[in-house]
Amino acid sequence: MTPFSKNMVSVSLWITVTILFGSLCDGGKILVVPLEGSHWVNMDILIKALHGQGHSIDVIRTYNSWFVKENSTYYNSITIPNTTGMDEEFVDDMLSKLIDHERGKSHWLSAVQLYFDITSSMYKIHKMVCQLITNMFESEKIMKALHDKQYDLMLTDPVWGAGIFLAHKLKLPMVYNVRWTTTGEGHFDITPSPLSYIPITGSGNSDKMNFFQRVKNVFYYFLMNFQYSYFNLPQYQALCDKYFHPPVRFHELLQGADIWLMRVDFVFEFPRPTMPNIIYIGGFQCKPVKALPQDLEDFIQSSGEHGVIIMSLGTFISDLPDDVTAEIAAAFAQLPQKVIWRYTGKRPSTLGNNTLLVDWMPQNDLLGHPKTKVFIAHGGTNGVQEALYHGIPVVGIPFFFDQYDNLIRLQERGGAKILSIATLDKNTLYAALQEVINEPSYRLSMQRLSHLHKDKPIKPLDSALFWIEFVMRHKGAAHLRTESYKLPWYSYYSVDVAVTLFAVVLIFTLSIFFILRYLCVKFCCRKRKTE
Amino acid sequence: MTPFSKNMVSVSLWITVTILFGSLCDGGKILVVPLEGSHWVNMDILIKALHGQGHSIDVIRTYNSWFVKENSTYYNSITIPNTTGMDEEFVDDMLSKLIDHERGKSHWLSAVQLYFDITSSMYKIHKMVCQLITNMFESEKIMKALHDKQYDLMLTDPVWGAGIFLAHKLKLPMVYNVRWTTTGEGHFDITPSPLSYIPITGSGNSDKMNFFQRVKNVFYYFLMNFQYSYFNLPQYQALCDKYFHPPVRFHELLQGADIWLMRVDFVFEFPRPTMPNIIYIGGFQCKPVKALPQDLEDFIQSSGEHGVIIMSLGTFISDLPDDVTAEIAAAFAQLPQKVIWRYTGKRPSTLGNNTLLVDWMPQNDLLGHPKTKVFIAHGGTNGVQEALYHGIPVVGIPFFFDQYDNLIRLQERGGAKILSIATLDKNTLYAALQEVINEPSYRLSMQRLSHLHKDKPIKPLDSALFWIEFVMRHKGAAHLRTESYKLPWYSYYSVDVAVTLFAVVLIFTLSIFFILRYLCVKFCCRKRKTE
Repeated sequence: MTPFSKNMVSVSLWITVTILFGSLCDGGKILVVPLEGSHWVNMDILIKALHGQGHSIDVIRTYNSWFVKENSTYYNSITIPNTTGMDEEFVDDMLSKLIDHERGKSHWLSAVQLYFDITSSMYKIHKMVCQLITNMFESEKIMKALHDKQYDLMLTDPVWGAGIFLAHKLKLPMVYNVRWTTTGEGHFDITPSPLSYIPITGSGNSDKMNFFQRVKNVFYYFLMNFQYSYFNLPQYQALCDKYFHPPVRFHELLQGADIWLMRVDFVFEFPRPTMPNIIYIGGFQCKPVKALPQDLEDFIQSSGEHGVIIMSLGTFISDLPDDVTAEIAAAFAQLPQKVIWRYTGKRPSTLGNNTLLVDWMPQNDLLGHPKTKVFIAHGGTNGVQEALYHGIPVVGIPFFFDQYDNLIRLQERGGAKILSIATLDKNTLYAALQEVINEPSYRLSMQRLSHLHKDKPIKPLDSALFWIEFVMRHKGAAHLRTESYKLPWYSYYSVDVAVTLFAVVLIFTLSIFFILRYLCVKFCCRKRKTE
Repeated sequence: MTPFSKNMVSVSLWITVTILFGSLCDGGKILVVPLEGSHWVNMDILIKALHGQGHSIDVIRTYNSWFVKENSTYYNSITIPNTTGMDEEFVDDMLSKLIDHERGKSHWLSAVQLYFDITSSMYKIHKMVCQLITNMFESEKIMKALHDKQYDLMLTDPVWGAGIFLAHKLKLPMVYNVRWTTTGEGHFDITPSPLSYIPITGSGNSDKMNFFQRVKNVFYYFLMNFQYSYFNLPQYQALCDKYFHPPVRFHELLQGADIWLMRVDFVFEFPRPTMPNIIYIGGFQCKPVKALPQDLEDFIQSSGEHGVIIMSLGTFISDLPDDVTAEIAAAFAQLPQKVIWRYTGKRPSTLGNNTLLVDWMPQNDLLGHPKTKVFIAHGGTNGVQEALYHGIPVVGIPFFFDQYDNLIRLQERGGAKILSIATLDKNTLYAALQEVINEPSYRLSMQRLSHLHKDKPIKPLDSALFWIEFVMRHKGAAHLRTESYKLPWYSYYSVDVAVTLFAVVLIFTLSIFFILRYLCVKFCCRKRKTE
């Protein structure tokens, strides 16, 4: 289907069904502007839970939304016409480029190209989002309908700016389901983040850095800011200038959310400064296991004392180069364990009898199975959190985004071993699996993290629901939110005060000096004259 | 009783009863090193609650401990012999000086003297604490007994350093019940605290400051640091150098607590950066009301529609100058309300029939009474939190320490009016009470704060207990605690990285410049020669 024909379908759908503005309910009215992919998987859990609490939820989507379905039993969708979103095609194209880069990453020129490729992809994504915002804001019909609905809350993922714009326009309190924003890692937007111990995503650093790692960290910080300031921010700021009067800085809108439901947990994330309106809900997607389908259970039981290995590379990666899958399959074939591998690409020729390829798997229930020995994962937040919840050690094969950084957090705590896709072959994978399965420290570390993670006064999902409803009850959470970000930078960092105090001290010292010199000259001269 | 005779009593007590090391119990074994005064009132609540959970608690005290009694049903006391603590006499002397200063504070020289008087008092208090530490550490008997007891946890208030020393010596995980440390406001020790919006205690600033207030804030920050660095820290550091090998910086020990149970709540405190191991328990001392004694209830009911005013100036202030109390009593006499005034000093001559003087009052139950209209308070944290919990507006008469700053936090939110003891007379007090009683915004503001404060997923006291037990279960909370404070300052602030990057850029630019100049000279010369 060409983009054009897709557009036509969207328009006709818009005419026939589009805004299924939900019926009234006893709870609050929540407008959700989500993201695609694994971000939606997260948001969907919150939406289901909020629906369970009796709230009515409307979700904004584009006509070609990849994950956000038009018809759902627990939310109403609002399809914005004539608007393209990030679909499977777009993602596949971007991902195959990223994997190619990753495999050839030894070359520094390749790293530079990767940075600009990512920057360019991000620019395109934000351009799509800006088009979505424009299409909403230019449609009187949509804006009137949204306005008339009198929502109580905007719930959004701030990697894209659309929810932020809509919240400001509709004057709604705003809650983020967040780990990343349009800038980068979410904390950096509202929390002091000393670069000496807070690693920048992509730098591969932990919270303990030597001098050269700290230099690298600062360098990555500048790269991150450069991408945001010169490619993403200007697009949003132009829309702010066009649609908002009095004028407002986009970054201020971004920083102004009432509550930040942060999808990390300090069992996983390195300890760092935070803010009163950041609520940590890492692992909110995890839950106790349910029984497996009989065929999977039988397969697992057939592994005997050796147990099983689970492999999944997440929502995005459906396909890998044939030579890579052949090596992976060959490594598996040598193992006494059984392997369950979620993979929808071409069946590798080297696949052993001990390996079961599946299109989809109940990942949480598999990771919670007592026979599971190790989880081979790409390092996406969801998978890492689930492994942590169930105390299963990880062999990580990171590809892009935050995956390497997520895995580093587990590796630093002794629960994971990281392999590079660039050097992955059957021998390295086999050796890594042997090490993680046979060296008890990996499992013990993950089980310790699992105990720490579960030892909380309130479950992460309950915490998320509480704070979303808190914001609805009190129409915001102003008392938890500093407005210091509205200060100009030289005031925020007290540069003006420092300069003033320095000037005062300088003037005072110079005055004393000149007075003394004057007196000295005067008296010396008089003395000489007298002499 | 002279200090000497007090000492003798202490020694004999030591011989007869001293270390009542508690019997074993199913729960954990907790060692508590508390503070006196209102700090003990707070700690006592935690101790009672921990005892209720089945833990065994030993409390370190000096023989003349003012608040920490030797015999208790819910803790065992450990009296350190030959050690003087802060008693009523010491406090009364310091307070009368402070009140005198406050009344004559218009003079700037008085402010300077006040600063040095406070610094001197603080020096003396920390000297006492250092003597307590020395006496403990030098007594093999005490140290052996403490060591043999194999405690699970140190619970301490870090205004004094004794608990910190003992925790390090006995290698115990440590939890603070904290608002202040030996340095100043607790957050400043472990959390980035930009001076542009975080007011220093004593500066009288809020979180929104103009340029001059920011200059004042920086100035107060230096005063606070000067006091700590030159008077308090060296005393503790000397003991660290003497008793700890390998050497350790006292400030590192102070920063190293596993959990900081912070006695504030962001309904009260201005929003500011925090850390994962700071747990906010502000208002943990508040509880729903119980029925009042019949005489108090009858007195209150006799106020009819006018209601009652409650006045208390806290744990410390038992006495005020006669002229001040006469003015206060005269203002009360003019009011249609009834007044309950906790005051143990001389009965004022101007006292009206509507005013009841009491030695002690059930403050929480009185503030929760529906007929209570206003609370006249000095601004101590406990009273302010109780007023906030029950939604009662405050007329504040601050004297010293953090009292003015606490009241500013309520005033900024519309719930309090502050009077100065320097200008207090019957007219100003009468007018302030009239305003706060008759202007509904004060009560509405406090009720809004009360609702916000009570709307929590877990009660503050339960939260405190959870985290204390968490630290005992896991023998610390290392995953929540950054160790970035162990970095040297130039690394923490990335000064070394900045200098290096600057040098690299400079060398690069200069190299280019000199190469170009060399080439230019060479080619120009050759050209000239050729010509």
